[in-house]
Amino acid sequence: MKSFIAYQLTPTFSNIQVSRRYKHFDWLHKQLVEKYSCVAVPPLPEKQISGRFEEDFILMRLRALQLWMDRMCTHPVIAGSDVMVHFLSCTDEKRWKVGKRKAEKDDYTGGKFFFTVTTPPHALDAKVVDQQMERFGRFVKSMDDSAKHLLTIAENGVRKYQGSFKKEHMKLGGSFIALAKSFEFDERPAAQPLTRALEHSGKTYEDIGRLFAGQPELDFKGLMEGLQEYRGILSTFPDILAVQRAATQKIQESAGRLNDSEMATVQSRADVITYTTQAEMSHFHEVRVGDFKGYMQAFLQSQIQFHQRVTQMLQETLQAYDQA
Amino acid sequence: MKSFIAYQLTPTFSNIQVSRRYKHFDWLHKQLVEKYSCVAVPPLPEKQISGRFEEDFILMRLRALQLWMDRMCTHPVIAGSDVMVHFLSCTDEKRWKVGKRKAEKDDYTGGKFFFTVTTPPHALDAKVVDQQMERFGRFVKSMDDSAKHLLTIAENGVRKYQGSFKKEHMKLGGSFIALAKSFEFDERPAAQPLTRALEHSGKTYEDIGRLFAGQPELDFKGLMEGLQEYRGILSTFPDILAVQRAATQKIQESAGRLNDSEMATVQSRADVITYTTQAEMSHFHEVRVGDFKGYMQAFLQSQIQFHQRVTQMLQETLQAYDQA
Repeated sequence: MKSFIAYQLTPTFSNIQVSRRYKHFDWLHKQLVEKYSCVAVPPLPEKQISGRFEEDFILMRLRALQLWMDRMCTHPVIAGSDVMVHFLSCTDEKRWKVGKRKAEKDDYTGGKFFFTVTTPPHALDAKVVDQQMERFGRFVKSMDDSAKHLLTIAENGVRKYQGSFKKEHMKLGGSFIALAKSFEFDERPAAQPLTRALEHSGKTYEDIGRLFAGQPELDFKGLMEGLQEYRGILSTFPDILAVQRAATQKIQESAGRLNDSEMATVQSRADVITYTTQAEMSHFHEVRVGDFKGYMQAFLQSQIQFHQRVTQMLQETLQAYDQA
Repeated sequence: MKSFIAYQLTPTFSNIQVSRRYKHFDWLHKQLVEKYSCVAVPPLPEKQISGRFEEDFILMRLRALQLWMDRMCTHPVIAGSDVMVHFLSCTDEKRWKVGKRKAEKDDYTGGKFFFTVTTPPHALDAKVVDQQMERFGRFVKSMDDSAKHLLTIAENGVRKYQGSFKKEHMKLGGSFIALAKSFEFDERPAAQPLTRALEHSGKTYEDIGRLFAGQPELDFKGLMEGLQEYRGILSTFPDILAVQRAATQKIQESAGRLNDSEMATVQSRADVITYTTQAEMSHFHEVRVGDFKGYMQAFLQSQIQFHQRVTQMLQETLQAYDQA
């Protein structure tokens, strides 16, 4: 007997639930990468055999698969593709196998996919295109470096919030409580409000410490998730750019060796690839702006709420001194 | 030729400025300690010969002398004492020397000071007094331990605010700016608001980092100053309690060796010392409540302002995303 983790998906277009295993996602990923060599199909989360049923890992992978699926379903080409529709809607074992075979036998994958693409008829300026592609390549490297760096800083931030930031406030709280404890030697009624207020402040700082520890879950984690996803997307672009580069290099290699009509075909074929790559680059940038706007807004809102909560807690404990 | 640091004091009761040197404070301190063996006369700040003219040290000592003087001038016995009035009001070199000699020749210092004290006529219950004194001794130890611990935590807090808390926010800011820099590769006008907003957030976090670094000056420093002053005051109580203990021990030693009349004198003399010590203890506790109320209110208010300022800065940078 075997056991496995099943992922249940309910697409909004059908509202009918389908059940898939990791290996199905893996298969879908392979199909998409093969067919759409010009689309940024990010890698799936790691399969990781050992500790497969560990709850944290399962939840993390579920979340990563969810993000991957959301990403693919909002891609203008992928979303409506046969293989994706099949993956998201087939509930019948037999039809599943038929659709699977059909996708695997698809003639229009890789280089042949471009035969199915219609582009503007205008020929492209090779020099302008080269500069644009080279620039995008540098952008990918630059953004990946920045994202990687920010991830390191954020990971460190999480450790600080849960470590020294928390500890520092807990220790301060503990010291206030200890001082209040020593003040208890003075049993005059007039002395009690201060002693109680100081104790309250101590507990407040302990609570603030705990608030620090819980904060990364509310801000850093979301930002890091987004950055990690983007690093996956960015990692696909060197291959995409290589396909486009190969097509333009073919023109240069063919120059003088083919007749005008043959050259025109090679040229227009390269242009289709360039147009498609440009579309993908443009799509990436558009989505990037929306995504990072969202990441930053969520991050900042949560940080604001944190500081507002701390302010409120401090104001409450400050009031305790009114009677002291 | 010699140079020295002069401290100018303008007492509110005369509004006439007098100029004193550290050695004059030192002399005053000695007179007060000798005359008022039952009063908590805290130690002066260290004289420290080397680096005497270093600005930081001068400012720190000025501040500590100011606190010491404020403390002495609010003490019900010290404030009106001849030696204090002389110190605060004499502007004439010749009269200064006369007053100085007079203070040094004061007959009613140390044990003899108690002859000048009038107390309630009721005899005190030795057992109750012993318990009270023992309890106060334990309180002094306990409060000093707590104050010392809180000081260590606060010193550590200062280092954290100026070190890792600052750095962590500066680094996060720097990472946002670096990511914004990579976004500049996308020159579409539609992409600019996000890039600018992200850059703004980066600068905001750098500013927040700087705010962290400047914060201890506004909260921890005041609290630490108060704690340090209190450690000085607390350090005087063991001697004060020893004087009282010696007086009560004298009763026990005299029991059976003196006649009734002599015993009554010893007893009433011990009671005067106990009453005076009780008055000092009571004064200490009363002032302590007011002081720590003030320290904590100032500390919390400054912390509240800090978190409010951070909230405001984050809200401002969050708004930058409205256009993105």
